[in-house]
Amino acid sequence: MDNDTRASAVIVEPAAGPRRGIGLDEFRLADGFWERMQRSNSRNTLRHCLDWMDRLGWTANFDRVSEGATEDSRPGWQFSDSEIYKLLEALAWEYGRTGEAWVNALLESLVDRVAAAQDGDGYLNTCFGHAGQQPRYSDLASGHELYCTGHLLQAAAARARTVGPDKLVEVARRAADQVCRQFGPDGRAGLCGHPEIELGLAELGRVLHEPRYTEQARLFVERRGYGTLKAIPLLDASYFQDDVPVRAAAVWRGHAVRALYLAAGAADVAADTGDTGLLEAVERQWERTVERRTYLTGGMGSRHQDEGFGEDWELPPDRAYSETCAGIASVMVAWRLYLSTGEVRYADLMERTLYNVVAASPSPDGRSFFYANPLHQRTAAAGIRPDQVNPRAEGGVRAPWFDVSCCPTNLARTLAAWQGYAASVEGDTVTLLQYAAGELRPALDGGGELVLRITTEYPHDGAVRVEVVAAPDREVELRLRIPDWAHGATLADHAGERGVAPGWAHVRGVLVPGAIVDLHLPMEPRLTWPDVRIDAVRGCVAVERGPLVLCAESLDLPVSWSLDTVRIDAAHPPRAEGDGAVAWMTPVETPPNPAGAAGYPPYRSSAAPSREDSASAWRDVPLVPYYRWARRGSSAMRVFLPAAPNGSPATTGR
Amino acid sequence: MDNDTRASAVIVEPAAGPRRGIGLDEFRLADGFWERMQRSNSRNTLRHCLDWMDRLGWTANFDRVSEGATEDSRPGWQFSDSEIYKLLEALAWEYGRTGEAWVNALLESLVDRVAAAQDGDGYLNTCFGHAGQQPRYSDLASGHELYCTGHLLQAAAARARTVGPDKLVEVARRAADQVCRQFGPDGRAGLCGHPEIELGLAELGRVLHEPRYTEQARLFVERRGYGTLKAIPLLDASYFQDDVPVRAAAVWRGHAVRALYLAAGAADVAADTGDTGLLEAVERQWERTVERRTYLTGGMGSRHQDEGFGEDWELPPDRAYSETCAGIASVMVAWRLYLSTGEVRYADLMERTLYNVVAASPSPDGRSFFYANPLHQRTAAAGIRPDQVNPRAEGGVRAPWFDVSCCPTNLARTLAAWQGYAASVEGDTVTLLQYAAGELRPALDGGGELVLRITTEYPHDGAVRVEVVAAPDREVELRLRIPDWAHGATLADHAGERGVAPGWAHVRGVLVPGAIVDLHLPMEPRLTWPDVRIDAVRGCVAVERGPLVLCAESLDLPVSWSLDTVRIDAAHPPRAEGDGAVAWMTPVETPPNPAGAAGYPPYRSSAAPSREDSASAWRDVPLVPYYRWARRGSSAMRVFLPAAPNGSPATTGR
Repeated sequence: MDNDTRASAVIVEPAAGPRRGIGLDEFRLADGFWERMQRSNSRNTLRHCLDWMDRLGWTANFDRVSEGATEDSRPGWQFSDSEIYKLLEALAWEYGRTGEAWVNALLESLVDRVAAAQDGDGYLNTCFGHAGQQPRYSDLASGHELYCTGHLLQAAAARARTVGPDKLVEVARRAADQVCRQFGPDGRAGLCGHPEIELGLAELGRVLHEPRYTEQARLFVERRGYGTLKAIPLLDASYFQDDVPVRAAAVWRGHAVRALYLAAGAADVAADTGDTGLLEAVERQWERTVERRTYLTGGMGSRHQDEGFGEDWELPPDRAYSETCAGIASVMVAWRLYLSTGEVRYADLMERTLYNVVAASPSPDGRSFFYANPLHQRTAAAGIRPDQVNPRAEGGVRAPWFDVSCCPTNLARTLAAWQGYAASVEGDTVTLLQYAAGELRPALDGGGELVLRITTEYPHDGAVRVEVVAAPDREVELRLRIPDWAHGATLADHAGERGVAPGWAHVRGVLVPGAIVDLHLPMEPRLTWPDVRIDAVRGCVAVERGPLVLCAESLDLPVSWSLDTVRIDAAHPPRAEGDGAVAWMTPVETPPNPAGAAGYPPYRSSAAPSREDSASAWRDVPLVPYYRWARRGSSAMRVFLPAAPNGSPATTGR
Repeated sequence: MDNDTRASAVIVEPAAGPRRGIGLDEFRLADGFWERMQRSNSRNTLRHCLDWMDRLGWTANFDRVSEGATEDSRPGWQFSDSEIYKLLEALAWEYGRTGEAWVNALLESLVDRVAAAQDGDGYLNTCFGHAGQQPRYSDLASGHELYCTGHLLQAAAARARTVGPDKLVEVARRAADQVCRQFGPDGRAGLCGHPEIELGLAELGRVLHEPRYTEQARLFVERRGYGTLKAIPLLDASYFQDDVPVRAAAVWRGHAVRALYLAAGAADVAADTGDTGLLEAVERQWERTVERRTYLTGGMGSRHQDEGFGEDWELPPDRAYSETCAGIASVMVAWRLYLSTGEVRYADLMERTLYNVVAASPSPDGRSFFYANPLHQRTAAAGIRPDQVNPRAEGGVRAPWFDVSCCPTNLARTLAAWQGYAASVEGDTVTLLQYAAGELRPALDGGGELVLRITTEYPHDGAVRVEVVAAPDREVELRLRIPDWAHGATLADHAGERGVAPGWAHVRGVLVPGAIVDLHLPMEPRLTWPDVRIDAVRGCVAVERGPLVLCAESLDLPVSWSLDTVRIDAAHPPRAEGDGAVAWMTPVETPPNPAGAAGYPPYRSSAAPSREDSASAWRDVPLVPYYRWARRGSSAMRVFLPAAPNGSPATTGR
């Protein structure tokens, strides 16, 4: 790879704007939180995904098309091609980052099979348009053809940015051209039931400098919202955001991943076309959604029924859907909004979501995953059969594969490119957005070599040291994100130590070789209270520590306790322990329920609520980082803990 | 109709046991709550249902079969035949109760069309087994063929009990025989994905004294729970109760209507075969479900995703599914358990469910319906198009018809036969179970004429007068149900006035003509607190009055208030007003959410929760009976009201 190609190995590259994310090769991670996840992804997850897709026949679907052997039935859902494309994207980033030959070989062998299935006119889909199958584009609402193509285009953009044009890029170009002919300004005014083609077209258009693709993305964005998609039984048009045009919508609604991919595509179109009205619409939707429809973990999606957003303030912890893919999609949207606006709040939400949704999904070995990420699990799961396809891993056990298995490959592509979100460059200003140990060599717009060595145990420790190894001979600025939760942070540089408030901390006039900048982020556990309008967690408090949301697991309770009845003494501050905390807790007694007694269980009519009796059972209970829950085995779990109304005897007198 | 036939016009008739419900013609309702619902059902709902089914082509499906004109597509879901059968059951009860000729004519004309579609061997279904259709019983998990047949058999049982054997009964007999040949001891060991055939076979077996049908019902009950039904994507075997055998299950789970129809069928089988183990299993499931998985309204089903039960304590008020049909099915189960055990708790739950789920569904004109019955509606609905099929009326507006339209016909058959649940007879003891004005002429086992005139405005008033108009010349006992909520009830009879506790009150030695018994049930509004384990309504209280659950509607709030932020002063007792109450309430301020401020909305880290500031805005707010919500127009609504932690200034000093 030459330097020119590597310099563009960024996750997203708006055609205009002063700000760019760093390329993957600009930040070499050292051992640490994300490096370990990336390593597990590399060593296990990539191969794991391919094995399952081979086993289930999803990869062979391409061979059946190339061999003319299609039938009226076919393994996998209609969108299974997209899983192969997301894996291709993951492999593209992985090879771009590591240069490992086996990754490239795997990618190329898959691309050969995919390419062989492409029709002469560029159409590429293993579920439609061949012998025994429904005609092309005959079911835009549910068929997912354009959705699959979008993922193909994203994979090709990743490939183009990491190694330059190749066979995958050529396949994608022909597919994109076919889409533009079919659905272009003079073609059919259709749109796909699952947004994604918008993203793919915008990204491939950037890489290939092809304005037709950007225009086609814009057309797809603008066509949505007029109720033209055929209804799916028992769902309404908001399910696929066909209820209100993107620029008119106030908030995200319907299927969360659909809503978020659409928003990301709209943000791309807005950036490349200079459409500030469209950008403002997406920002407005983000703001309202984050304010009223987002979990403490950053998770989005309150309903299982449609894998969708609920109404404002509808945020049940137990039935949180908070799909892993929605977390990833939220990171994608926030990243685009950060690039377009430079506002720190987008990077704050990305951190929250990366640590508490994205990182929660995979097991340490990268071979099993959460699909839904609830904040409360009442019953320890009965266990998932380890070698089976599972519905959606709702029971508190990570599963190796799913019936609809969008999350594993989505995680694979996200983790493979993680450092692309860690820093940005604007002129001669380098901004650290996410903290991880490693060596950062950001390509400055003004040229010259800047090398920063970052040392930290973040998120388990709040100390971040930035050491200047090399720097150009001119003024370069370092900007550090002080997270929204980090009240009391301090920064020490050549000018001495000072307090820094959430937002941006600037370091100027110091970036000479040998200079050291020490950031200290406060890592004491803190109590976090929900808005009074979030009914589902009224009277509860959560404990956070740095960027990590903590939780209580039934495994850590005395055997006679139940998570159904624990109370936390919010007047007795949790203290740090290990990488979690301990909190002062008690079980409360539940009213007896004598069979045949008058009074309708589980409701009691009386002038006052039952007094909560806790006897003298107060004790310290460990809280662990949410992302690690259920790793030690099946467990009940709570993020939000009911607060004892009167505290413990020791704190009552305060 | 002769007296013999009328005497058996009961809703359910166990083959054995000392207790029977009264026949429909044994209790003539006078003007009152249920009489008005019954009148609206009679005048509007019956015809309304038929009109919609004609309009949508569901009735014509029978003609297409009889004309040999079936095609591979067909209007309606695969279970639409069952709606015609539920309407037939409603018409059968309606005619049995009223003798109105137009009802009988309507029934007979429908029966002619149904009968014409029956195949030579008795098989009857308009979706399977004919030209262009899938073969018979080729999709037991989802095809609903046996489910439809079950409803046909229930309709025939109602007809046989009200007019005796006729064409409908003959059609049902042939259909039942075909089922027994196909699925009998020597036939295919299959079962239906939706229980119902068990109920139908048991009931028709009773009417026709046909033990083969009872045995076939027993086989279907016993076959379930071994995971033999083909899985439905994204659902597991618990969805149709095929996960655990009926006699081994601890609690109801999965799709609520399926679980409850199965329980009702199992209770029928248990009663007729003397299988106490099976009966105890159903009782145990009832107890655990009522204790942990039932709403204050009596509603069952906490999840939209699978229209199903959630886990223990999972009772979100906003996403309560509480399907109208599940409420009806719960009444059906409780009625069977009451008949088998004589325990008052079953009649208590029936009352709760009848007033707060069943009565909540229809509009006063009987032409629109709730499908789901949530206990909290955050956003007033945008309105439902009055002349359209709607998905499920989740938005707080009753809809005229649904895509899956099981509730309207289910209501029709339930309301048409309501008085069948109102009283029971055991030897010479008559038990009043549900209170309504009218003339009760229970057929005593020992013969002789007993006529009781009941005068009451119940549930809007707690006074119930029972006047003896005629009585046989021997000791007859009257037993009155004192509801579980009725602490402080009094009874006045010849022996004077005395307090009566929840349970049974006995009146003996008084039933001579002219005697008067006055029951007074306390109707002051009362506060009702949820079990501490019901997370979703922590810190909240409901207000009930008599058998009615009350609710606050946004229509009744000052315009500047929002139901999202109201608090009730639980130390300031609500007082009765009209047929509802008024409660002392205030809005609380929500923390400001300045754009760009540090802190992640809507969660705040701090040592203590935000103080809830309420200024001096306390005022009386009306609460109305839940069953009437959204009748005055689209409205937000809450049953459970967050209690102000410190009460209002006026009560703080207490």
